[in-house]
Amino acid sequence: MAKLLVLHGPNLNLLGVREPEIYGRETLADINNQLAQRAQAAGHELTWYQSNAEHELIGRIHQARDEQVAYILINPGAFTHTSVALRDALAAVAIPFIEAHMSNVHAREPFRRHSYLSDLAVGVICGFGSDSYRLGLDAAMAKLEPKPAG
Amino acid sequence: MAKLLVLHGPNLNLLGVREPEIYGRETLADINNQLAQRAQAAGHELTWYQSNAEHELIGRIHQARDEQVAYILINPGAFTHTSVALRDALAAVAIPFIEAHMSNVHAREPFRRHSYLSDLAVGVICGFGSDSYRLGLDAAMAKLEPKPAG
Amino acid sequence: MAKLLVLHGPNLNLLGVREPEIYGRETLADINNQLAQRAQAAGHELTWYQSNAEHELIGRIHQARDEQVAYILINPGAFTHTSVALRDALAAVAIPFIEAHMSNVHAREPFRRHSYLSDLAVGVICGFGSDSYRLGLDAAMAKLEPKPAG
Amino acid sequence: MAKLLVLHGPNLNLLGVREPEIYGRETLADINNQLAQRAQAAGHELTWYQSNAEHELIGRIHQARDEQVAYILINPGAFTHTSVALRDALAAVAIPFIEAHMSNVHAREPFRRHSYLSDLAVGVICGFGSDSYRLGLDAAMAKLEPKPAG
Amino acid sequence: MAKLLVLHGPNLNLLGVREPEIYGRETLADINNQLAQRAQAAGHELTWYQSNAEHELIGRIHQARDEQVAYILINPGAFTHTSVALRDALAAVAIPFIEAHMSNVHAREPFRRHSYLSDLAVGVICGFGSDSYRLGLDAAMAKLEPKPAG
Amino acid sequence: MAKLLVLHGPNLNLLGVREPEIYGRETLADINNQLAQRAQAAGHELTWYQSNAEHELIGRIHQARDEQVAYILINPGAFTHTSVALRDALAAVAIPFIEAHMSNVHAREPFRRHSYLSDLAVGVICGFGSDSYRLGLDAAMAKLEPKPAG
Amino acid sequence: MAKLLVLHGPNLNLLGVREPEIYGRETLADINNQLAQRAQAAGHELTWYQSNAEHELIGRIHQARDEQVAYILINPGAFTHTSVALRDALAAVAIPFIEAHMSNVHAREPFRRHSYLSDLAVGVICGFGSDSYRLGLDAAMAKLEPKPAG
Amino acid sequence: MAKLLVLHGPNLNLLGVREPEIYGRETLADINNQLAQRAQAAGHELTWYQSNAEHELIGRIHQARDEQVAYILINPGAFTHTSVALRDALAAVAIPFIEAHMSNVHAREPFRRHSYLSDLAVGVICGFGSDSYRLGLDAAMAKLEPKPAG
Amino acid sequence: MAKLLVLHGPNLNLLGVREPEIYGRETLADINNQLAQRAQAAGHELTWYQSNAEHELIGRIHQARDEQVAYILINPGAFTHTSVALRDALAAVAIPFIEAHMSNVHAREPFRRHSYLSDLAVGVICGFGSDSYRLGLDAAMAKLEPKPAG
Amino acid sequence: MAKLLVLHGPNLNLLGVREPEIYGRETLADINNQLAQRAQAAGHELTWYQSNAEHELIGRIHQARDEQVAYILINPGAFTHTSVALRDALAAVAIPFIEAHMSNVHAREPFRRHSYLSDLAVGVICGFGSDSYRLGLDAAMAKLEPKPAG
Amino acid sequence: MAKLLVLHGPNLNLLGVREPEIYGRETLADINNQLAQRAQAAGHELTWYQSNAEHELIGRIHQARDEQVAYILINPGAFTHTSVALRDALAAVAIPFIEAHMSNVHAREPFRRHSYLSDLAVGVICGFGSDSYRLGLDAAMAKLEPKPAG
Amino acid sequence: MAKLLVLHGPNLNLLGVREPEIYGRETLADINNQLAQRAQAAGHELTWYQSNAEHELIGRIHQARDEQVAYILINPGAFTHTSVALRDALAAVAIPFIEAHMSNVHAREPFRRHSYLSDLAVGVICGFGSDSYRLGLDAAMAKLEPKPAG
Repeated sequence: MAKLLVLHGPNLNLLGVREPEIYGRETLADINNQLAQRAQAAGHELTWYQSNAEHELIGRIHQARDEQVAYILINPGAFTHTSVALRDALAAVAIPFIEAHMSNVHAREPFRRHSYLSDLAVGVICGFGSDSYRLGLDAAMAKLEPKPAG
Repeated sequence: MAKLLVLHGPNLNLLGVREPEIYGRETLADINNQLAQRAQAAGHELTWYQSNAEHELIGRIHQARDEQVAYILINPGAFTHTSVALRDALAAVAIPFIEAHMSNVHAREPFRRHSYLSDLAVGVICGFGSDSYRLGLDAAMAKLEPKPAG
Repeated sequence: MAKLLVLHGPNLNLLGVREPEIYGRETLADINNQLAQRAQAAGHELTWYQSNAEHELIGRIHQARDEQVAYILINPGAFTHTSVALRDALAAVAIPFIEAHMSNVHAREPFRRHSYLSDLAVGVICGFGSDSYRLGLDAAMAKLEPKPAG
Repeated sequence: MAKLLVLHGPNLNLLGVREPEIYGRETLADINNQLAQRAQAAGHELTWYQSNAEHELIGRIHQARDEQVAYILINPGAFTHTSVALRDALAAVAIPFIEAHMSNVHAREPFRRHSYLSDLAVGVICGFGSDSYRLGLDAAMAKLEPKPAG
Repeated sequence: MAKLLVLHGPNLNLLGVREPEIYGRETLADINNQLAQRAQAAGHELTWYQSNAEHELIGRIHQARDEQVAYILINPGAFTHTSVALRDALAAVAIPFIEAHMSNVHAREPFRRHSYLSDLAVGVICGFGSDSYRLGLDAAMAKLEPKPAG
Repeated sequence: MAKLLVLHGPNLNLLGVREPEIYGRETLADINNQLAQRAQAAGHELTWYQSNAEHELIGRIHQARDEQVAYILINPGAFTHTSVALRDALAAVAIPFIEAHMSNVHAREPFRRHSYLSDLAVGVICGFGSDSYRLGLDAAMAKLEPKPAG
Repeated sequence: MAKLLVLHGPNLNLLGVREPEIYGRETLADINNQLAQRAQAAGHELTWYQSNAEHELIGRIHQARDEQVAYILINPGAFTHTSVALRDALAAVAIPFIEAHMSNVHAREPFRRHSYLSDLAVGVICGFGSDSYRLGLDAAMAKLEPKPAG
Repeated sequence: MAKLLVLHGPNLNLLGVREPEIYGRETLADINNQLAQRAQAAGHELTWYQSNAEHELIGRIHQARDEQVAYILINPGAFTHTSVALRDALAAVAIPFIEAHMSNVHAREPFRRHSYLSDLAVGVICGFGSDSYRLGLDAAMAKLEPKPAG
Repeated sequence: MAKLLVLHGPNLNLLGVREPEIYGRETLADINNQLAQRAQAAGHELTWYQSNAEHELIGRIHQARDEQVAYILINPGAFTHTSVALRDALAAVAIPFIEAHMSNVHAREPFRRHSYLSDLAVGVICGFGSDSYRLGLDAAMAKLEPKPAG
Repeated sequence: MAKLLVLHGPNLNLLGVREPEIYGRETLADINNQLAQRAQAAGHELTWYQSNAEHELIGRIHQARDEQVAYILINPGAFTHTSVALRDALAAVAIPFIEAHMSNVHAREPFRRHSYLSDLAVGVICGFGSDSYRLGLDAAMAKLEPKPAG
Repeated sequence: MAKLLVLHGPNLNLLGVREPEIYGRETLADINNQLAQRAQAAGHELTWYQSNAEHELIGRIHQARDEQVAYILINPGAFTHTSVALRDALAAVAIPFIEAHMSNVHAREPFRRHSYLSDLAVGVICGFGSDSYRLGLDAAMAKLEPKPAG
Repeated sequence: MAKLLVLHGPNLNLLGVREPEIYGRETLADINNQLAQRAQAAGHELTWYQSNAEHELIGRIHQARDEQVAYILINPGAFTHTSVALRDALAAVAIPFIEAHMSNVHAREPFRRHSYLSDLAVGVICGFGSDSYRLGLDAAMAKLEPKPAG
């Protein structure tokens, strides 16, 4: 059994709240609950955290090291493109992490094509809406499984 | 039930053949078989194709339109960074597609950060070894599921 | 009658406090009061908020949506050039906004020529000291006026 | 009492003439008349000039110096992005000027983000349609008012 | 029957005049006459205009709108690379236009590879000497023909 | 009488096949037949070739030299932007060629503005749909006509 | 006697805590204490502050002005490369400051070569581990010493 | 005896008129007269022309060809940096020309470092105030002198 | 004794065939035969392969691994500048290789200065005509010689 | 006891000689003497060398290897930005070195922000006048001290 | 009477020696003698110096300060584009200088368009062969003449 | 019989001297002797020169012209990337030259990919250790051989 942490960056607290007839009624809480159940079903423990504040996300990452979190799944939102501090925090705690985005960042503004995290990440997933989280969790859990001898 | 097509670009035929003690013994055939079973279990039909030739991949994409393929999962390999023709083929047949890479392209040479396909793709997955294919297939199949009324 | 919100970014709390013999004695409170009176005279309600913290400005923008704020006037200060998260917050709440700067950003360091907000803004005003706020408020109130039939 | 000059660059003569059902019926003459009245009400004298020719605008700027114009409000139109000669003319006469644009230049083609005038201007206003002129005039008149002792 | 306008930019008045033993004896008048005859033969009316002055070309474009010109064929000469005002004039009158160049601009100085007009044009033709005009006229007339039902 | 060769690059085999109600029912075969008739009417012989494979186009160009083809009309499609090998083939056989595109490449993605062929071509035509081919053929045939003594 | 302030940016709270067998057991508290003693020995008073939050560092800088701090020694960490707001805060209070980095930023990722602070700093020191702080303090104290008449 | 033409670009008509106590009382007429006398003393005929209009300068250059002008000395002013049309006019008439600037363009704004004329010019002189003209004239006259046999 | 493979990229099949009076009569076959004899004289076995098709070169490289080729000498021709797939193939088989060009790529078009292969190559040789091959072969054979103990 | 070498690049011989009333009377000899005393006090031996010639500095660096110099402190002056040869010399002798500048290179011309040495240096110090040397010496001597067991 | 110094950079010692039938028989000594006579005729004293060594030119510039040289005329040759040290030397001695080039640097390789000296120079002259020196000397002597009261 | 000159740039005097157990015991003298013997065996005379000083290499190149050297083989070392003066010297004497590097410059720092010499060289060889010299000599001698009639 391993501990997993899901981190959500700025503005993701608005999910499912704003214009549900357009963007769907799935809130961040819904997503988090589904992820937790999926992790639990696989014998893991999953916690989550959302913040609009870079320093709170950094603090949560520092804490993850003390908690012996085995894997981080992070949707850094806008901080993807601007936060070296988040990069440094993830590098400092040396916990493997997966970067996920709900939208396809390659099909948006040019500045969204650069991430300060991707080259440190195990892998990156984008474009599948809330499924990006589910796929990221599956990827993390697959990494946590013992590999059969080669 | 839907038809899915998995495309593999140049050099991927070497998977599992070269230095298996290092890179693992999983061949492209192994991956394809697992993907086909996974799709079949979900009631879909999955075929695959690998080529080192750009024009053969283009031809296979053209053919997919006639076959009414519902989703394409493509690991374009090196063509990711150089082939406008592949981009045009995918745009022309207008079949939704997912781009997948086994390695984390963001952690390699700078020229691998640019893809001619990503902005047209539904989503992009990279860095999870052969799991990138499995996750991409899951993402495609999730898209094919009927959504409950919002 | 409409609700208007004026937002001030980092370091603007220092206005009028530091070296008043040089920069003038007009404080941020003075500016805010004048703007509120001007809005009130036109039958509108104006509130304001200053923070050095990006996440607090984001939170205030989110809240503005719940409060049914009709227009935002924002001097993002240094965040103009670095905050994608602020851009995303403004885009998410979909409240029309005007970007204002006291100094002429075009006559300063080259990095000040790029704004993450301007292309989403209704309009941009810079270079008129505290008058930039007044002009921005007038512009917002003009937009709120019913247009005569064309 | 001060003299103010409003300059309009190329193609602005078409305002209000073309497709009024879409762009409105407000002509350049309408705008000019309103600006003149507004200036007169504040005790100033306002004249205007439009030309599609760079050299005519330069000539008008040179003449403004002889006329002791106190402030120039200029919508340079397309010359914003291409005319060093206009920049030099404004620098040579050393009359303070305000740059105004009806559209939000930041939300259009990338080449419109560069202005040869902005760093010499007192300030810049864009995005408010014909209100950009009115706001620019107000800004100029505010600058002309005597400041109370600091 | 439709009205067509051919516009020639700066320095094109020198055609056929300078060093005819090298560049040929075909003058701009010759070209214009041939184009007019070709248009007339197809039942259209063609007029032409050359100027070394950007503002005169802009004025002629404005006038074309009043004259209900159906198509413009323009060789902008050097203004291709420097005139945003010409671009704006063509965009404002919304008359479809074709851009033609006698020389192959791609085989000359690098700055000639950029055009401020091409992305607004219906199409672009270059490199065929005076035939570039004839081909451009044919292209325009083909566009004016009624299409058979698809 | 001269031999002319028309070359079509990747994905152009789809013309007229896909969504004819939108893109028209004109197939590549239709275009080729019309071009052949047009050439024949002028006393020339025209052949054509389409391939999705760069090496097959190169081979066809090499063969053209042996066949004493007098002029090549090429729509290189996506290879325009990526194939140095095609450039080298055309340079090696030293047959004059015209580059044609059905769409206006200047109004599409930025990477389509660069061509590896244009500076070697006699001329370039783009934006006129299938008329681009016809105009290109006319341009080639005009070049093949004997010029009257200057 | 002068007041000195040492500021530490994000992630520096982890110093000496994580993997001490590799990075050494020297904590940020150790460094701060040594700096304070060194300053006291020279007759100065030194305080320190660490935060992962940009706005808290800005607030601390604002406060330093009220406290009449004579010199700031700052290791901005990741904010070096991303925070215009920190730059503005330091510029606004006009307290001379020294920028220090424990690692050699020139030998790391390319984005670490750019600092938003360096051109405003008195001087910059990097690469000496915790000695960077000590050297920075010495440099500040040397600046505070009265210079003998030249 | 040869004919020489001196051309002055935009804003140079202001020379000696504006703030003579600062910039000197030497007008453009003064400079022209001195140049004419200097040329006459060497047995040449010198005429001059100033315009703020690009097309008038182009027209004057075209006319120079008919007048058999042997050398042009041009201070293109702001057109240096923006006018391809002027470049084309000078190239078309094929009269050797010298580019002169009163100010040192290398010590001003970065955009002044690029000239559309310099690579076509015989030589370039800048930075010597009105002496730049005199030196340019001397250079032209030296070129016109018969060279002794090598 | 070692196996050596010489690979020739696109258009090199034309060598010696086209305009022999200018480019010489040495065909690719001549070069290959001379290389084979030179290798044989040194006790090695040399085979060669030319293709205009990227995928055929890739296939030949894959095959070289099975054949236990000790060294590859490759003139990638135009693929030097465009083929990431060739790079990947060479990297995958991990056979040391030497890159050779007949022309001096540094003295041609700017895009020829970039190679996707050079940083993976043992060394690069260019500019010596067919001698580039001979020198490359000598370099490879020197590498294959046992080194005397240092 | 260790040997230390201080190197001074071009133009530094002018220190203290030119305009002492402005720049101070401290000569390079003064600085060198103070550094030697400081090193001696710590039990080390310090020598120095200044040259305006790149090759003499290179020669001195080569010689340092034979002399078993333990640390180099170098102010490369203008060679910082232009000398790859100096970089290579320092890399070749593999003596750890510290780069020091008297002025704050970040606050001067943009080309001074790039150093060919910094990424190879242990650390970099700039902006403290002659104190930059003293701080650099302290940093070197701190590195030479035995570290207590972790 | 003033002292003038003419400096010649690398390779200029070859003037007039190599291929005189092509480049002329005028040697550097010839040029220097003519310049000295011209200066003497105007009551000045002119000395000269050529070196292929950057440090010798720097040393000569330092010496010029001691000799109270009033003006330097420098043809820096290749050092124009690479020597920051020469720039620093000229800035340090604060002697006004003129930069001269025999060839038109704007019509040669792109790297010759950048000079490390031009923005510090009084003015720049290029393209007139050995006349560039004569014109530069005239410019310097004109600067040395007393100006009549404005 | 021809004269050949081998030039070695800065730091190459260290070859074989430093850490011979790692880099081998082959000194520059060893290389030079082997080259001289190889040349002598082919009936040529070979001399060599190494310097860390740019001006000495320039001087040696000038001298080569007087000595009627037929070919130069140069390893410019670090000067490859920084010395325009060396380029000018080689261009001035017009002796054909070959550029050789012991290391593969394409696999090192990015700045090593640019050479100021390569486009003037006959050819370039890199990556083969001291064999690069031998191959370069062979290439030069092959060029010196009389070609059989084509």
